[in-house]
Amino acid sequence: MRVDVIASVGEAIVDDLLHKTVVAIDVLRATTVMTTALEQGAEGIVPVETVAQARSLQQAGDLLGGERGCKKIPGFDYGNSPYEFLDGSIAGRRLIMTTTNGTRAIQKAQKAGCVLAGSFRNAAACAKAAAALDKDIVLLCAGTQDVFSLEDGLCAGALLHEIRSVAKGVLAPNDFGLAMEAAFLQHRANLTDTILNCSNGIRLTKLGYSQDVGFCTEISVSSTVPKLHGHILKPIQ
Amino acid sequence: MRVDVIASVGEAIVDDLLHKTVVAIDVLRATTVMTTALEQGAEGIVPVETVAQARSLQQAGDLLGGERGCKKIPGFDYGNSPYEFLDGSIAGRRLIMTTTNGTRAIQKAQKAGCVLAGSFRNAAACAKAAAALDKDIVLLCAGTQDVFSLEDGLCAGALLHEIRSVAKGVLAPNDFGLAMEAAFLQHRANLTDTILNCSNGIRLTKLGYSQDVGFCTEISVSSTVPKLHGHILKPIQ
Repeated sequence: MRVDVIASVGEAIVDDLLHKTVVAIDVLRATTVMTTALEQGAEGIVPVETVAQARSLQQAGDLLGGERGCKKIPGFDYGNSPYEFLDGSIAGRRLIMTTTNGTRAIQKAQKAGCVLAGSFRNAAACAKAAAALDKDIVLLCAGTQDVFSLEDGLCAGALLHEIRSVAKGVLAPNDFGLAMEAAFLQHRANLTDTILNCSNGIRLTKLGYSQDVGFCTEISVSSTVPKLHGHILKPIQ
Repeated sequence: MRVDVIASVGEAIVDDLLHKTVVAIDVLRATTVMTTALEQGAEGIVPVETVAQARSLQQAGDLLGGERGCKKIPGFDYGNSPYEFLDGSIAGRRLIMTTTNGTRAIQKAQKAGCVLAGSFRNAAACAKAAAALDKDIVLLCAGTQDVFSLEDGLCAGALLHEIRSVAKGVLAPNDFGLAMEAAFLQHRANLTDTILNCSNGIRLTKLGYSQDVGFCTEISVSSTVPKLHGHILKPIQ
């Protein structure tokens, strides 16, 4: 089984994803929010590219979430902090969500055999679900405006490491995956501090969201794995 | 001081390299060969892109070296194995050299403030030379046909780690650099085995060059640092 890690959305080639299992990774914070919202009982999540699309798709009962420049979009119900989804308000509701990078990763993978949303919080469960599909896997780091982000790379490394422990047969990771796995193992014991000191950690801290980094770097605390069905993410049962 | 690691030649933007110190890295095997040939007394090395250019530039006394598909080019004096340069034949001679990826990295950096050739063998000396220039540094991994290669990334991580220990003031590495430094530290104790098992290590082993991987992964055993002067690499004195 091949496992390729791709450094940022801009580097992914749509045709290379066909028939494969793609795990989209945007640790800070889109795929962590997706995991959290579904864990809290959201009926489903519709990731869209633009704010206008989000508004036009909203039906009665739907809630809007997302960010631009890490900040909540005016008029939206939620920003992009996972803590906003812990008050019970998302239960039973559909979330229309637009973010700068994570949403693009999901969109780019639309034609893959299967699309999952991965984060540190669901790492073990997501790796198990991806391995169980028994197809080649692409771990697609969202990155930040087509530049590699450390937190997504380390999460891809964590996922690859978990996949090794559950996959049948021999794994063939690409060189980039091997590097990310090693970097994750090096930083596993001090993950939160490491990510607080990389570019997005520093940016979020300046905006007052350092607590989010702690939440987003808890490893394998959730068994919820968002999976794309058509245009909506629902938890794997 | 910024230290940016770039994953492969294809990702480098020429204008982003202006006025900076660029360290070109092609561990297997171009920049290791450059280090070795100059250490063995080569008068200078002229890196060129094509086989035809190499032949047309050759003057009396010059020797030709390089590879295509990891193999020696017909009619050339040397291939791209560092062991070929240990017999004394290169002393006092100019080497015209063309390789698939390493040469391209040097060419792409032509307009930088300063271009050095880095490898595991000269890691400490190269880091010291780069830091002493006191300008922003780009560690440019050659990669393999525009795809990231583990050995170049780990060498960039080693260089960044060495630069930390000698640079004055605070370093600001990019996220990719932080990941490569962590991956290097994770693999430092088993570097040869790690690289024998990545894509270029496997390829070279199949072609009978596994011994080269051992040579190319010895860390900081050489004090020779190739530096570009116009179109010719000479050792920093």
